[in-house]
Amino acid sequence: MPGTPPTRYVYLGPEGTFAEQALRTIPAAERGQRTPARSVGEALDAVRSGDADAALVPLENSIGGGVGVTLDEMVAGAPLVITREVVLPVEFVLATRHGVARADIRSVAAHPQASTQCRGWLRDNLPDAVVVDVLSNAAAARSAATGEHDAAICAPIGASQQRLSVLADKIADHGDAVTRFALVSRPGTPPPATGDDRTSLAVYIAHDRVGALLAVLMELAVRGVNLTRIESRPTGEALGRYAFFLDCTGHVADDRMGEALRGLRRVSAEVRFLGSYPRHRWTDSESDGPVPAPPGQSDVDYTDAAAWLDRIRRG
Amino acid sequence: MPGTPPTRYVYLGPEGTFAEQALRTIPAAERGQRTPARSVGEALDAVRSGDADAALVPLENSIGGGVGVTLDEMVAGAPLVITREVVLPVEFVLATRHGVARADIRSVAAHPQASTQCRGWLRDNLPDAVVVDVLSNAAAARSAATGEHDAAICAPIGASQQRLSVLADKIADHGDAVTRFALVSRPGTPPPATGDDRTSLAVYIAHDRVGALLAVLMELAVRGVNLTRIESRPTGEALGRYAFFLDCTGHVADDRMGEALRGLRRVSAEVRFLGSYPRHRWTDSESDGPVPAPPGQSDVDYTDAAAWLDRIRRG
Amino acid sequence: MPGTPPTRYVYLGPEGTFAEQALRTIPAAERGQRTPARSVGEALDAVRSGDADAALVPLENSIGGGVGVTLDEMVAGAPLVITREVVLPVEFVLATRHGVARADIRSVAAHPQASTQCRGWLRDNLPDAVVVDVLSNAAAARSAATGEHDAAICAPIGASQQRLSVLADKIADHGDAVTRFALVSRPGTPPPATGDDRTSLAVYIAHDRVGALLAVLMELAVRGVNLTRIESRPTGEALGRYAFFLDCTGHVADDRMGEALRGLRRVSAEVRFLGSYPRHRWTDSESDGPVPAPPGQSDVDYTDAAAWLDRIRRG
Amino acid sequence: MPGTPPTRYVYLGPEGTFAEQALRTIPAAERGQRTPARSVGEALDAVRSGDADAALVPLENSIGGGVGVTLDEMVAGAPLVITREVVLPVEFVLATRHGVARADIRSVAAHPQASTQCRGWLRDNLPDAVVVDVLSNAAAARSAATGEHDAAICAPIGASQQRLSVLADKIADHGDAVTRFALVSRPGTPPPATGDDRTSLAVYIAHDRVGALLAVLMELAVRGVNLTRIESRPTGEALGRYAFFLDCTGHVADDRMGEALRGLRRVSAEVRFLGSYPRHRWTDSESDGPVPAPPGQSDVDYTDAAAWLDRIRRG
Repeated sequence: MPGTPPTRYVYLGPEGTFAEQALRTIPAAERGQRTPARSVGEALDAVRSGDADAALVPLENSIGGGVGVTLDEMVAGAPLVITREVVLPVEFVLATRHGVARADIRSVAAHPQASTQCRGWLRDNLPDAVVVDVLSNAAAARSAATGEHDAAICAPIGASQQRLSVLADKIADHGDAVTRFALVSRPGTPPPATGDDRTSLAVYIAHDRVGALLAVLMELAVRGVNLTRIESRPTGEALGRYAFFLDCTGHVADDRMGEALRGLRRVSAEVRFLGSYPRHRWTDSESDGPVPAPPGQSDVDYTDAAAWLDRIRRG
Repeated sequence: MPGTPPTRYVYLGPEGTFAEQALRTIPAAERGQRTPARSVGEALDAVRSGDADAALVPLENSIGGGVGVTLDEMVAGAPLVITREVVLPVEFVLATRHGVARADIRSVAAHPQASTQCRGWLRDNLPDAVVVDVLSNAAAARSAATGEHDAAICAPIGASQQRLSVLADKIADHGDAVTRFALVSRPGTPPPATGDDRTSLAVYIAHDRVGALLAVLMELAVRGVNLTRIESRPTGEALGRYAFFLDCTGHVADDRMGEALRGLRRVSAEVRFLGSYPRHRWTDSESDGPVPAPPGQSDVDYTDAAAWLDRIRRG
Repeated sequence: MPGTPPTRYVYLGPEGTFAEQALRTIPAAERGQRTPARSVGEALDAVRSGDADAALVPLENSIGGGVGVTLDEMVAGAPLVITREVVLPVEFVLATRHGVARADIRSVAAHPQASTQCRGWLRDNLPDAVVVDVLSNAAAARSAATGEHDAAICAPIGASQQRLSVLADKIADHGDAVTRFALVSRPGTPPPATGDDRTSLAVYIAHDRVGALLAVLMELAVRGVNLTRIESRPTGEALGRYAFFLDCTGHVADDRMGEALRGLRRVSAEVRFLGSYPRHRWTDSESDGPVPAPPGQSDVDYTDAAAWLDRIRRG
Repeated sequence: MPGTPPTRYVYLGPEGTFAEQALRTIPAAERGQRTPARSVGEALDAVRSGDADAALVPLENSIGGGVGVTLDEMVAGAPLVITREVVLPVEFVLATRHGVARADIRSVAAHPQASTQCRGWLRDNLPDAVVVDVLSNAAAARSAATGEHDAAICAPIGASQQRLSVLADKIADHGDAVTRFALVSRPGTPPPATGDDRTSLAVYIAHDRVGALLAVLMELAVRGVNLTRIESRPTGEALGRYAFFLDCTGHVADDRMGEALRGLRRVSAEVRFLGSYPRHRWTDSESDGPVPAPPGQSDVDYTDAAAWLDRIRRG
C-alpha cells in the first residue's frame, strides 16, 4: 500500500453530494478515478474486493445519516482501515435555475435531513413554500435544474454541477456544523505518525454494564490516551454483546497507544483496529493544535521505564 | 399529565412505517388519534406546542436513520421527557401485488437503509433485480401497489395497508435486529417505578477528555447504576462542548438514581433529564429480567446509611 | 460534652515525654488535671470508663512507636472520637547534669527509637560514646539526672523537668519531623466545622483486593474528599478482614463528607467514625491553608442539586 | 547473590526474641552465623556495608513496634531488597523459674507492647500482679531467670533459652496474631518466580491527594495486580511529599507486574523496588492458596497481545 497511492476511488454517491466534495479535497483523488457508490456498504465492499483502492464514506454527524451504517459496515466483513479523515463544513445553499426569484418559490426539493437542518431558515424566509422530500442532496439539485421543483436545498457542489444560481448560502441553522468523512483502504502499514493523529477502534465487550465500559476507558486513561468520540451499538451477532466505537488521540506507533491497545486486547472480547491517521486540521486556532502527551506518557518516558525495569529484573 | 392519558398522538411518518406499527402496540394510542409527522423535529414540536399530547419517534438502531436526529431534537428546544419505550423487531418483507411471482421481479423499491439491511438476502434470492431507492418503507409499498415497481421491501404494516402479497418475510440479514421507539411528552410526574425501569439523560461536559467522561461514569458506577447505551455528540452550540446521551437502568424515584443524578448535576456543565419509564420486556427469557440493585445500593441501604449519618452528626 | 470542656486529662506517660508536652499546648489541659497512663490502651480505657474526660495519645509518626497501637485501641472497644489534634515538632536534645562537658560523655541513655532518629548526629559528634537503651525519653532524662549515665537524648520538657543542661538541641537527623497527637473523648456532638477540618475513619472491607480498596477511595473521590493518610491493618478478629485507617480533609457536617460517609457505610463491611476536628495549623505558609471544596462540591452545590432533583421528581 | 546463599545473618536483637525465632526457621540461617543488632537501622546498615549478607527484620504487625522504622530504614540509604518473608504466630507465654507457682507471682516483667497484647489475660488471671516494663521480650525472660521479677511475658524461644517453666502459653488476647519478618539483602537477581509471590514497593507522589493515590492504584488495577497492604508515610525529605508502601501479589518477572511497575515509574515521582519473593505459606487452607492471574492478565495473554499489536503495526 505505501509507495503506491490509491488511484481508484469510490465514494458514497450520488454525484454532487458532500462526499464527492470531500473526496476532491484530496489531491491524489482529484487526479484519480472517482466512482459513486449507492451505499456505504457497496463502497466498502468495492475496496474489499479490490475493485477500488479507497472509499470515502461519512463517519460522523453526517447529513446523509450514514454514521451508524458506516461503523457497522466497517466491522461487518474483511478488515478495513481508515487512512485519512476529511472534515467538511456543512454548508447548505438554496439554489434555483437562473431567473427564479425568491418570491417565485412555491416548492423546495430537499433531502429530509437537509430540510431538518435548515428548518429555522425555511420558516423565517420561505414560510409558504412546500418542502418536498427527495432521496439525496444531489437529487434535490437535479429536480431544481429540471424544473420539477422551484428550488433545492443542496451542497455547493450540487448547485455548481447543475449550473444553478445560489439565492442564499450557509442556510443551516447551526453555522458551524461539520461532517467528518473517512478514507478507507485495505489493511496496510499505517500512515506515519505526525504528532497529531487519531486512532479509531471498535471494542466488543460481553456485557453492557458500566463496569465493563469503565474497564475499557481505564485502559485508555492510565496511558493518557484521550477519547474524542464514543458510541455504543448493540451487535446483531449475539444478544447482550456490545460494540463501542472509539476515536482516540494518538497513533498506533506511539508507545502509549501501543500499550493501551494491548490492554484493550486483553480485557475485551475483541478489538478491531480501524486505523491511525493524521487528524484533520480545519482551523489554525490554538484550541485545535496537537494535544501533547500528558506527563509521563511520552515515548521517552516509556523507553526510560522499560530500561529501569530491565535493570531491576537483572538485579 | 397523570390521570389524563394522552389522546392525540403524532408519530414519525409516513403511514405504514415501523413507527406507526410501534405506536399501535400501545392500547391508548390504538383508541386515540394518530397523526404522521414529516420529521422527528416536527413530531416533537407538535408536542411542545400542545398540538399533540405525545409523539412516537425512533430512538435506537432505527431503520429510518432517525436516532441522532431524535437525540438532537429532544434537547434542542423546550424540555420533553420519554414516558414509555416500545421495542419492535425489524421484520422486513418482500411484498408484491397479487399474482406477481418471484421470477417476474425486475425492480425492487426500497429505502436505502432497508435494502442495505437485506443486502445478503437480495444477492442470494434476487441477484438480477434492480433495487430502486425510495424515500421510505411506506413509499416502497405504495410503488409496488401502483405497479411502478415489481416489488417492495417494507414493513409488514406497509404490506397489509397496501394489500400486497408477502412473498418472503424476515428477509433482513440479521434476524434479531430491533428498533427502539420512545413515546415523548411534555414534562410531568414520571410514570411510577416498576422495579424494571430505564432512565435517559443528556450530560454535557466542557471537554471531550477521557477524564471528563470517566468522571461522569464514576458518578453512576459508585451508586451501582448500570449503563445500557452511550453516545457522544459534538454540540452545535459551542466548539469543544460535548453531549453524552446515556440510558441507565433504574428510575429517578430510586434513591441511588437520585444520588447519581445529583452527582451528575454537580460535576457536569449541564444534565438534561430525558425521562424514567418502564423497560420494554420483549422476551420472557431470564437474561432479560429486571436487574436488582447491587449490594448496598437498594433504597433500604440508603435509608439505613442516612439514619447512621444522622446519629453520628448528633453525637 | 459541648458546654463542659474536659477537666480530667490522661496522656501516654510517663511524665516528661512529648505527649505531656503536646497536652500542655491545650489551654484547658494546662488548667486541668493531667495524669500519665502506662499505655495507649490504658489511657483510652480511662476515658471509656469515665475516669478521665479526654486522653492525649500519639497518632502518627510517633517517637514512642504507638501509632498502630493507637489505631487498634481506638476501635477495639466502646466508640471513641478524636476532638482535637496537636502536631508537635520532634525536637531531641542532648542533656546532661550541670558541669558535664561533651568530652566527658561515655554513655548516653536513650529510647531505642530516639537514638535511631539521632543516629547520624551521634556518629558525627559522639562516636565513642556507648548508647544505652532505656524504656522512654523520660527515663533517659532521669538516668542522666541520677548520674547513672553521662547524658540523655530526650524531649526538651524532660530536660527541664529533670533540671538538666542542654548541650545540643535539634539533634534529630531529620529536622522537620513531627509527631501528631489526638485528643480523644467519648462520642458527642463533634466540634463545629471551621472550614479547615479533618475527619478520621476506620473502614473495614471483607477482602484485601485492590478492587475493594479502589471502591472505598472512589466513594471519597467522587465527592471531592481528599485523603491525607491511609494505613491498612489486618484485623485480629477474622482472617481476611482488613481495616483501613483514613484521614480525610473536611467535616462530618459538610454535605460532601456526609454523602461520602453514607457511601462508605453502604459499600464496606463496617465504617467506624473516629471524629471530625480542626486541622492543626502549624505554619502560616500558604501551602498549609485550608483546602477549598473542589468545583461542584461545596454545600451550595449540594443544595442546588437537591433542589433540581426535587423539581424533576415532581415533574 | 544467587549461587552463594548468605552465610552471615544479622537480626533485630536481642537474642531470644521473635526475630531470632523467625530467622531460625530458615535452614541456611540455622547453619550460618547469626548476630543480633541493636536496631533495625543497624541491621540494615550491616548488610549495606557488607558486614552481613542478610538481615532479618520485622515488617508488619510486629510486637517490637519496628514496622514503620523498617520501612523508613529500607528506603533511607543504598538500595536493599527483600528476598524472603517469614510469618510467625505471635505466641506469648507466661514463664517463671522452676518452682514458682501462679499464686506466688507478685511482679511480671514485660515489654510494654507485649503486656498490651496480653492485657485481657493478665486482668483475668493475675489481677493483683504488678506489670513492670522492660526493654524487650528477651529482657523480660532474663529478669525472671535472675529472680528480679517473679514472672515474664516472653516468646517461647526466650523461655527456653533462659530455661524457664511455661505456666501458661498462648496468652495473647488475639489468638491468631502474627508477625511478618523480611529477610533483606543487597540488590541482586530476585529469587525465581514460584507462582505465589509477593512484590514490595515504595511509591513516592508529590501530593497527598486522593487523585494521586487513585492514579497509583489504577496502574495496579488495570494489570490485575492485587494489593495486600498499603501504608502512607510522610517523608522527612520534603514537606508534602508522601511515600506509599505497597505489598502486591505477583513477581517482577511476571509480564503484568512488569507493565504495572513501568506504569508506576512513569506516573509517580519515584518508585523504589523492595523485592519480589515467595509468599509465606503458613496454612494449607484453600483460602491461602496462590491467587491466579485474573482473566486476560496471564503471561500468555501478554504475549498474545504483543503479537497482535506487532501485526497491526506492520499492516
